[in-house]
Amino acid sequence: MSANRSVSRSVSRTAGALVEVPRGLAGVVVTDTEIGDVRGVEGFYHYRQYSAVDLARTRGFEDVWHLLVHGELPDAERAAAFAAETAALRRLPIEVSAALPAIARAGAGSGPLAGMRTALSLLGAAKGFRPVYDLDADRRRQDALVAAAAVPTLLTALHRLGQGLEPVEPREDLSYAANYLYMLTGAEPDAQRARAIEQYLISTIDHGFNASTFAARVITSTGADVAACLVGAVGALSGPLHGGAPSRALDTLDAIGTPDRIDSWIRERVLAGERIMGFGHAIYRTEDPRSRMLREIAERFGGPRVAFAVEVERRVERILAELKPGRELHANVEFYAGVVMELCGLPREMFTPTFAAGRVVGWSANILEQAADPKIIRPVARYVGPGAPVAVPELA
Amino acid sequence: MSANRSVSRSVSRTAGALVEVPRGLAGVVVTDTEIGDVRGVEGFYHYRQYSAVDLARTRGFEDVWHLLVHGELPDAERAAAFAAETAALRRLPIEVSAALPAIARAGAGSGPLAGMRTALSLLGAAKGFRPVYDLDADRRRQDALVAAAAVPTLLTALHRLGQGLEPVEPREDLSYAANYLYMLTGAEPDAQRARAIEQYLISTIDHGFNASTFAARVITSTGADVAACLVGAVGALSGPLHGGAPSRALDTLDAIGTPDRIDSWIRERVLAGERIMGFGHAIYRTEDPRSRMLREIAERFGGPRVAFAVEVERRVERILAELKPGRELHANVEFYAGVVMELCGLPREMFTPTFAAGRVVGWSANILEQAADPKIIRPVARYVGPGAPVAVPELA
Repeated sequence: MSANRSVSRSVSRTAGALVEVPRGLAGVVVTDTEIGDVRGVEGFYHYRQYSAVDLARTRGFEDVWHLLVHGELPDAERAAAFAAETAALRRLPIEVSAALPAIARAGAGSGPLAGMRTALSLLGAAKGFRPVYDLDADRRRQDALVAAAAVPTLLTALHRLGQGLEPVEPREDLSYAANYLYMLTGAEPDAQRARAIEQYLISTIDHGFNASTFAARVITSTGADVAACLVGAVGALSGPLHGGAPSRALDTLDAIGTPDRIDSWIRERVLAGERIMGFGHAIYRTEDPRSRMLREIAERFGGPRVAFAVEVERRVERILAELKPGRELHANVEFYAGVVMELCGLPREMFTPTFAAGRVVGWSANILEQAADPKIIRPVARYVGPGAPVAVPELA
Repeated sequence: MSANRSVSRSVSRTAGALVEVPRGLAGVVVTDTEIGDVRGVEGFYHYRQYSAVDLARTRGFEDVWHLLVHGELPDAERAAAFAAETAALRRLPIEVSAALPAIARAGAGSGPLAGMRTALSLLGAAKGFRPVYDLDADRRRQDALVAAAAVPTLLTALHRLGQGLEPVEPREDLSYAANYLYMLTGAEPDAQRARAIEQYLISTIDHGFNASTFAARVITSTGADVAACLVGAVGALSGPLHGGAPSRALDTLDAIGTPDRIDSWIRERVLAGERIMGFGHAIYRTEDPRSRMLREIAERFGGPRVAFAVEVERRVERILAELKPGRELHANVEFYAGVVMELCGLPREMFTPTFAAGRVVGWSANILEQAADPKIIRPVARYVGPGAPVAVPELA
């Protein structure tokens, strides 16, 4: 019975004693990965062997996508082929595009991210995605490309339908990032905006073993299809403790309003023990490398809004250093991501969905890596309720 | 900055060293629970303080649902109120029912479970489900009831649409189980079939910390809405290593065909090292208590199919004891679950979806328990790829 998966699973599950670990699995090594890492003390993160920020500065989104799912950067010929291959996947199957108006209408109050969760689930069914363990590596990757390539089309169509506008068909001659802005607005973006969003999208592809990535890998470990895994990841990203809300940082700017109000507004919040949205990160002890890159991008646009944001950042850091010495808090990725997305014309309801349009590539890579090493992820819970069995009472 | 969740999260994440644990988190205690447990050596599992099998023998599905999500069995008055409350939630919002034909059409090849994943995601958006951490316990439970009560309606409607039939509207005067069979066939089931499916559904509500339950809790831990959590669980259940396929056990019966072929068919498979579908379980060292109950239910129906199944079970156990001494293998829950579902007139494509129609209550209880204790579940991965950073090559 060597092919009996249940039996082989059982040995490790029942043979060993229970293993006590920190709450929330903090610090618990759940897998090895070759996808990337975050080195918080150094303020550095990487995809494969390359600095993520260096990739964002020097490469296009599709090149980095190739790096994540194929394991290496493409040469010029491969890069062009991969860009063409994924561009051809942007158009939705008719069964899915036909369902989008109903999805947008039903989820009118919940926004494009919840709508994309629904539509991606539908896409997987429409494309007949099969359990990952039933597929070879090429076919699994194909499903992952199909799903990820559709995400910008789904998000922008759902946003436009929610605004009472017709979706804009994807164009294959534009880059992933430029096509995203094009489908959102119906107008081809200028080169600066297209490149700014491209750099943001690259910088957000992966970032350590976050909760959505973990959710995707747990689902993958059961052998479920790629859409099932991605839909779980989208669900986790929608949680406030994970996806956050890049628009909150803009809310901070709006609430302060004018430069003369910066100091009083911030001091009041800090002394009241309130959080300043857009500041502080779980991992980085230094400046967040994503913030630094996004600030530079914003500064190239210039203008009073950017100057105001930079001034707010400078003063927040100074006031926090004064009022909370020893606790180094910097602008996090949300702060300048919000500024950059605003500069590129993205409405606030699209900030977290845009994050998902980059992160879906990271999820894809994690799903493919997990699927290559079949082993169900199945921890245990400790029962701490009343002792069982108690006799079931008669219905009184 | 005491309200700064990111900061408080960071302490436990970076302060400790990495924690090494068994692969797949086997035996790793990820949470305390008061929902239930499986005691594999004893062949016993329980919901709260009651034997799950005793509950299935003596109570209705709604009573056990109440036990799971409210923490106690209802008295007669509460039971009636809860049954009426949940029955009133069976009807779908018009935006969702209107979208079902498109969902069924797009997912024609993928079946009702994938369709339900899509439709449940849509339902959460249509109902405006909010992040669980933004809701009080009553409102969270309300969302969980709304979602679970809709699952049978969604599954049966999607199945019927897939068959070219009109969905059947739910009836509030029938029990959860009887209404499920009614919506599936359009005819009110007889009492024996309704009760048989009810007992199956009760027995399948929860069973330890399985992968779908864990996926739901990971997503919950980010604060996502109830639909996001359930959709992830449905995805995990669709994985072959988790949800399995109760219909495979019937495939075994079909493949054997007639009683005279039992011995030769089984010996051939066992000697070839192949798995016999429907036999062997990861946890139980004794007979699976669910199998025992389901066999009794089947035997009350009687007939040649049941007699054949019982005979196959008896001979498989005898031959395995002979050929693989020391390895006690019994019929697992799939074996008699398939037989019972067939006796009740369920088509095979509805076997795993029917499992989900029971398990959704267990997921609900786990989501509510997780949401009551906000702490993100976020383990780590160990980077084992090439050292970083390597300079990004020019596009060659």
